[in-house]
Amino acid sequence: MTSIDTLPGWFSDDELGWVRERLPILYVNAVPVRVDNTGAVTRVGLLLQAAPDQTISRAVVSGRVLYHERIRDALLRHLEKDLGPMALPSIPATPQPFTVAEYFPTPGATPYHDPRQHAVALAYVVPVTGDCRPRQDALDLVWFTPEEAAGPEVQQEMAAGQGVLVRQALAHTGRLP
Amino acid sequence: MTSIDTLPGWFSDDELGWVRERLPILYVNAVPVRVDNTGAVTRVGLLLQAAPDQTISRAVVSGRVLYHERIRDALLRHLEKDLGPMALPSIPATPQPFTVAEYFPTPGATPYHDPRQHAVALAYVVPVTGDCRPRQDALDLVWFTPEEAAGPEVQQEMAAGQGVLVRQALAHTGRLP
Amino acid sequence: MTSIDTLPGWFSDDELGWVRERLPILYVNAVPVRVDNTGAVTRVGLLLQAAPDQTISRAVVSGRVLYHERIRDALLRHLEKDLGPMALPSIPATPQPFTVAEYFPTPGATPYHDPRQHAVALAYVVPVTGDCRPRQDALDLVWFTPEEAAGPEVQQEMAAGQGVLVRQALAHTGRLP
Amino acid sequence: MTSIDTLPGWFSDDELGWVRERLPILYVNAVPVRVDNTGAVTRVGLLLQAAPDQTISRAVVSGRVLYHERIRDALLRHLEKDLGPMALPSIPATPQPFTVAEYFPTPGATPYHDPRQHAVALAYVVPVTGDCRPRQDALDLVWFTPEEAAGPEVQQEMAAGQGVLVRQALAHTGRLP
Repeated sequence: MTSIDTLPGWFSDDELGWVRERLPILYVNAVPVRVDNTGAVTRVGLLLQAAPDQTISRAVVSGRVLYHERIRDALLRHLEKDLGPMALPSIPATPQPFTVAEYFPTPGATPYHDPRQHAVALAYVVPVTGDCRPRQDALDLVWFTPEEAAGPEVQQEMAAGQGVLVRQALAHTGRLP
Repeated sequence: MTSIDTLPGWFSDDELGWVRERLPILYVNAVPVRVDNTGAVTRVGLLLQAAPDQTISRAVVSGRVLYHERIRDALLRHLEKDLGPMALPSIPATPQPFTVAEYFPTPGATPYHDPRQHAVALAYVVPVTGDCRPRQDALDLVWFTPEEAAGPEVQQEMAAGQGVLVRQALAHTGRLP
Repeated sequence: MTSIDTLPGWFSDDELGWVRERLPILYVNAVPVRVDNTGAVTRVGLLLQAAPDQTISRAVVSGRVLYHERIRDALLRHLEKDLGPMALPSIPATPQPFTVAEYFPTPGATPYHDPRQHAVALAYVVPVTGDCRPRQDALDLVWFTPEEAAGPEVQQEMAAGQGVLVRQALAHTGRLP
Repeated sequence: MTSIDTLPGWFSDDELGWVRERLPILYVNAVPVRVDNTGAVTRVGLLLQAAPDQTISRAVVSGRVLYHERIRDALLRHLEKDLGPMALPSIPATPQPFTVAEYFPTPGATPYHDPRQHAVALAYVVPVTGDCRPRQDALDLVWFTPEEAAGPEVQQEMAAGQGVLVRQALAHTGRLP
């Protein structure tokens, strides 16, 4: 996953490396969307991010679930981290994700890939109604139509298999072109 | 279903009776909820309704899908009809219902029962953030905690199997007591 | 929908035409799949059908829900009708469909189109383990890989928006290419 | 969770204890069911287990997801471990769980509780058609009707919040009494 997630201080770099080679790490993925008054998705929000190696890519909101943190609290925290405090995300009432994305360190084992670790992400579509101001390492947030988000140009700007994830989110909401 | 749904003018009473004996009729069921800022359900809204036979019961929002009407438009129309124009319902982004409730004219065939017809209802949990003012034949709208809504008192005030439907909605949102 | 579904005898042609102009008609759509021992989809089964106007197209299993018929009984009936009595379909344990496909008589209102009627189809992925022998008006059943089923060749052989439906089914099962 | 899951050899007891205080641990929960030919759930299978403290309880199939293991492979492994090699489980075609059960070390934070750790379990309903022979630490496997499984007697024999999980599974399959 291209989102850079700072692990809490009680992991040293060595400890983090040790854990990441031994356990699947639990993540949440959130696909921010704009909806009309009937709930139909009109836009998909994608972050423009710079990876540590300086490559630029588009990505959904993503981050780790912490010890003793509920899924819904992790979703809210990462959405606020990436979209700013005025985004007003509507976290889903149900804990049922639309899919589970399994990012494997080995490319090709699944559609998702994370060279650093085996991450398992619960994926949700999250309508946001407020004003989004990307923070931290996100350079920008761009709202695409479903057709643009599923189109070849945006798809090839997404890494780690998140192009597939966005198309799965569109399929789930009945907006896959 | 206890919701009284006036069919459009192009059905006479005779025509309506004829159709109801021959076809399953498509409905939507919406369980209105209040959620906190993490999306967790805090209250379930139930209508207090009087049936044609003057019996009083609690019910979810319910109504028929019209010819050439999308599911999401039917949801919005019935929510506005029953909760008033200021309810501000968040219609789900996905068309995937949490369950499909099959109301049979024969009691016991399924948990749901409608003596008038075979109705098949797509059921959704719908967060509402606005001011709810029951309209039309609804006498009142009461917000219950999940524990109250699943408790014996409220459950026995629900007819047509909608007590089960409410507990299914609570189960889907992780709030079944 | 390209599936030709004979309505029961108590509808004359005139009655059927009358109903189809006034009510949404409830359907089930089933996407037959082969799965491996871990449940992963390996093949998608598509029917080759001739429409009344002699055009040939590929389609999923589709048909009407009858009065007083449960969704699961309608699924089983149509799967046996189209795949033969030895197909051994595993009807899902949950009534929750992966999507609801709204076939409108007006093209473009939704991704799905049916010139004859407004049909609302509850869509399910159904693993089949037995021997499939297409019956009735189905000319053939062909098993495609997920890549083939989502590819341009097969997609353009599907009518009524069912190409989208198949890709939604693949997305739901984590197999969208 | 009452299931006793032996972690792989590369964790010493100290390491395991260290990890369990710092990270949510990813689990799968499987509710084994018998279904009829229309997919309707007729029985729910519960394991009779002895916890390390010798208390006896009923439980669903449960276990950890290993590093570099897919969810579906973990499901199959734990089902075979608990039900024996002839159970013939039908792992769901979709990775979408019916719920996500968050077992917290602090009782009351969620409906689920695990004093040893923060475990997050993806929960699936899994039809099994074969012959089940409980293995390892499971003393027995008993098939209950939905009414029995949701009834007070069985519910109070379940620990860790799994009584709620079983009722959620019944709700999801339309069989909550």
